[in-house]
Amino acid sequence: MFKFCFQMDTDLHSNYMREAIRLANNNIKNGGGPFGAIIVQDNEIIGRGVNRVTANSDPTAHAEVNAIREAALHLKTFDLSNCSIYTSCEPCPMCLGAIYWARISTIYYGNAKKDAAQIGFDDQFIYDEIKKPLAARKIPTQQLLKLEAISTFSSWAASDDKIEY
Amino acid sequence: MFKFCFQMDTDLHSNYMREAIRLANNNIKNGGGPFGAIIVQDNEIIGRGVNRVTANSDPTAHAEVNAIREAALHLKTFDLSNCSIYTSCEPCPMCLGAIYWARISTIYYGNAKKDAAQIGFDDQFIYDEIKKPLAARKIPTQQLLKLEAISTFSSWAASDDKIEY
Repeated sequence: MFKFCFQMDTDLHSNYMREAIRLANNNIKNGGGPFGAIIVQDNEIIGRGVNRVTANSDPTAHAEVNAIREAALHLKTFDLSNCSIYTSCEPCPMCLGAIYWARISTIYYGNAKKDAAQIGFDDQFIYDEIKKPLAARKIPTQQLLKLEAISTFSSWAASDDKIEY
Repeated sequence: MFKFCFQMDTDLHSNYMREAIRLANNNIKNGGGPFGAIIVQDNEIIGRGVNRVTANSDPTAHAEVNAIREAALHLKTFDLSNCSIYTSCEPCPMCLGAIYWARISTIYYGNAKKDAAQIGFDDQFIYDEIKKPLAARKIPTQQLLKLEAISTFSSWAASDDKIEY
């Protein structure tokens, strides 16, 4: 009985991953990149996304980001803590950050990032950069007006009607 | 003369940062988080963004992401390689990833991430997680159907009309 349930569960996960792969393959035919992702809650697909970076002139339009945005809009909350993401490729740092902010509970991925690097989508560079201290990064980064900027946080702390998350 | 030019340049940067801070302060009054960002190209502001995570039920709606999306739509390209970003707070990993994908040339920030942590926006956790190997991360992460998933990359490699980036 246990074995049967496990088999069912495995098939379910595989079917969700197949949907992410199907989205990725379709997206290539529609002028997008080879990436697809879905968000699942309680065995229901509540968000779908594909890579539309070049098609929509949007550097943030990765499959995972788009799927998260659709799912959050559907649930009317930024909190996807009881949801899983099935993505046709291991998330880049931007998408992994989005997954953490959305509090997604489980990540299933198809292709590994080393596979993506072989066809020209190399996010290892960004993984490496994020690990470095600011002064060592390739993009010059400078702090400005810190005494003025902190006013935003003082105002936030003093605000009565803020929504924390 | 050199000193004069430098002063002008410093004032210009300060004024752009003040605009990012102004957006952050206004956003608190409009039900958003205390974060603002702008994208500047050739001394022109081409994108503005504020944090609308709770207001729009969108975990990805950070100030930097929104500013990048607006700038890229304005320029009709995902490539912002000759643009600077002025953000009222040091970018989180998601936004830093977006900045790298957009190829932004320079980052100016106001508040440091340790300041943000003090008012409850702690992205150090995400920075720490991204550095870990998959198996050590807090979010369980599992590879599925890698032999089926790779078909997306084979199709991409074989596609004649793909737009690489």
